Amino acid sequence: MIYLTRLEHFNAAHKLYNPVWSKEKNEVVFGACANENWHGHNFELYVTVKGEINKDTGFLMDAKKLSELISENVTEKLDHKNLNLDVDFLKDKMCTTENLSIEIWKQLAGYLPTDVQLHCIKLYETPRIYVEYFGE
Amino acid sequence: MIYLTRLEHFNAAHKLYNPVWSKEKNEVVFGACANENWHGHNFELYVTVKGEINKDTGFLMDAKKLSELISENVTEKLDHKNLNLDVDFLKDKMCTTENLSIEIWKQLAGYLPTDVQLHCIKLYETPRIYVEYFGE
Amino acid sequence: MIYLTRLEHFNAAHKLYNPVWSKEKNEVVFGACANENWHGHNFELYVTVKGEINKDTGFLMDAKKLSELISENVTEKLDHKNLNLDVDFLKDKMCTTENLSIEIWKQLAGYLPTDVQLHCIKLYETPRIYVEYFGE
Amino acid sequence: MIYLTRLEHFNAAHKLYNPVWSKEKNEVVFGACANENWHGHNFELYVTVKGEINKDTGFLMDAKKLSELISENVTEKLDHKNLNLDVDFLKDKMCTTENLSIEIWKQLAGYLPTDVQLHCIKLYETPRIYVEYFGE
Amino acid sequence: MIYLTRLEHFNAAHKLYNPVWSKEKNEVVFGACANENWHGHNFELYVTVKGEINKDTGFLMDAKKLSELISENVTEKLDHKNLNLDVDFLKDKMCTTENLSIEIWKQLAGYLPTDVQLHCIKLYETPRIYVEYFGE
Amino acid sequence: MIYLTRLEHFNAAHKLYNPVWSKEKNEVVFGACANENWHGHNFELYVTVKGEINKDTGFLMDAKKLSELISENVTEKLDHKNLNLDVDFLKDKMCTTENLSIEIWKQLAGYLPTDVQLHCIKLYETPRIYVEYFGE
Repeated sequence: MIYLTRLEHFNAAHKLYNPVWSKEKNEVVFGACANENWHGHNFELYVTVKGEINKDTGFLMDAKKLSELISENVTEKLDHKNLNLDVDFLKDKMCTTENLSIEIWKQLAGYLPTDVQLHCIKLYETPRIYVEYFGE
Repeated sequence: MIYLTRLEHFNAAHKLYNPVWSKEKNEVVFGACANENWHGHNFELYVTVKGEINKDTGFLMDAKKLSELISENVTEKLDHKNLNLDVDFLKDKMCTTENLSIEIWKQLAGYLPTDVQLHCIKLYETPRIYVEYFGE
Repeated sequence: MIYLTRLEHFNAAHKLYNPVWSKEKNEVVFGACANENWHGHNFELYVTVKGEINKDTGFLMDAKKLSELISENVTEKLDHKNLNLDVDFLKDKMCTTENLSIEIWKQLAGYLPTDVQLHCIKLYETPRIYVEYFGE
Repeated sequence: MIYLTRLEHFNAAHKLYNPVWSKEKNEVVFGACANENWHGHNFELYVTVKGEINKDTGFLMDAKKLSELISENVTEKLDHKNLNLDVDFLKDKMCTTENLSIEIWKQLAGYLPTDVQLHCIKLYETPRIYVEYFGE
Repeated sequence: MIYLTRLEHFNAAHKLYNPVWSKEKNEVVFGACANENWHGHNFELYVTVKGEINKDTGFLMDAKKLSELISENVTEKLDHKNLNLDVDFLKDKMCTTENLSIEIWKQLAGYLPTDVQLHCIKLYETPRIYVEYFGE
Repeated sequence: MIYLTRLEHFNAAHKLYNPVWSKEKNEVVFGACANENWHGHNFELYVTVKGEINKDTGFLMDAKKLSELISENVTEKLDHKNLNLDVDFLKDKMCTTENLSIEIWKQLAGYLPTDVQLHCIKLYETPRIYVEYFGE
């Protein structure tokens, strides 16, 4: 079993708020993250896949192909977007890094080669905060 | 002459558009950066000051004091904000990293100790793009 | 299950020596790290917690709250300190990064919200050496 | 159980090609990586070992000793080398980062102190691509 | 005057040798870098341009356009290549990072917009060694 | 004119205090940095030299030779040391990063090859604070 990780980048706007709460309660719970005029981040996305090495290529899978899969299914849909308004697969979700990691997992899991498994989505929201999701 | 640099962080939403242009022209010129629903970044701000070392302290100036000056005059006004909508000193400016660097210079220049000069504002918009401004 | 990590910083002096050994033996075993006049490091501390996402907030826990817990219980007690002399919870411990990681775990484990578990303490002593402890 | 990681560096040339395939097929499968005149990388190698802390030293093992073991058994044999031509333990292997990680594991596993186990080889090929191998 | 920097990446093989010297003298002068079977690096290239801000766009120049110019004129010609064998503009040059920086300057200088000047080529050969060239 | 930079590392203990002041005044001026039991840092030292490229080698100077000069004249004297107590060339100096940068300049300037000039000492005290000195 070998693990391959590819780092990709996207930047986006978002805000944190629960629509069933008042503006005041959202500000108490989410602080500056509830700014109704939005804020944003440079997200750094690490996608880790795992499986057996292919004898013919010496690859688990081609890292360039992995990059293209992430680009098509994830970063093209998120880069330079408003996560709350512009992204189909985040509709009606709280746009926290936790939920974003899980939704990115769901976007990618179905598109990997059959002999390669998704292992981890690791998502940096800032250089000092990141979330990991292992699909369970 | 000695140079002291302090790194600070803020994250914010913005969009690039020229209000005298049509939506179509803005999209041609600014591409994804013109998304009317905004996008955002983790900005990394390097502030460099210069001057003579104080004989009593061995400091050009206290880096903690420099950090507080940047915080009060710059990052508290920009962090978790929408640069186009929420920031007095950016009103009616194109919110490019170029202009943002110059406006940050103006915010800071008047608040340094009298024997310390502002030397450079260096601002990372993404880990791969940054702007520098030396006040001239 | 989701994992959230927060990076914090402290710097401190320490030395490595076993008080039951002679000065010579300490120098043989610990080399330059046994310098009786101390040396020091910028420690980078990654704290990872895990648990279920709260439905109302979309958070595992607020990363800002996690930062405050680490600050109050760990970094305020270690930053700008001598690890051998100034820190109650390191009294009579060998001040290696291994032991420091375990003692940081003990300081934090009791202060997390009841539905959040401590998962990992990862501590960089230099940019090229780090230790991880998972509580077992 | 405690985990200790040491980062080492080497740079090397290599190419990716399967000798049973035609030049054309190699170019289709490996793209620019099949350039017959070679290309190269700065490899960043993280070696993680695990075990119990020694009561007398407070160490899992001396990080300097770990660095020397990696240097003697791995990086001195790889640094400033051609991985396809110059390295005994890579003879007749596809020189992918996946295979390189496994062969580095084999080089190191036999040389650790008896109470320390090898846990992970993590190898960056570029700043955006890395492979991990846990020995199973 | 404002300065804009864009970071790009390429990896390549090379060796250092002076063809008028014997193999022995090359090994004495260049050490491991003279390995006749080549070695290689991940090069990180920072290109800095300078000029006046365009009033209509707020840009010195579009960083995306700068990236494309670097790609077309420099990194596509160097990435996954052998610097000594595969690159027209390095023919008969010693392939040191110093010379490479100067030749990259020459490749780019003629392709910038007329109101933008090339200011600096900064080229990392390893994470611990870099060269800067300012065109004079 | 070409510029070559080499990054080196040392870690050390120090404290900030002016011996002509009372303990109380030192604490007011230097805060936690005045802790009489010391604190410490991982210092990252960038040494930049400049000059003409040697036609025979294509080098300004051999980066390995530069590394050895820094090691012999600077980092071996500072690494794992107490800057206030253990270092001849810092005797009776305030051990600020500003003064340390200037003293490192003095240590190195006399040992460079005759056709190479020292250009800059850049010294990181923490990942967020650094000082530069250009010899004037």
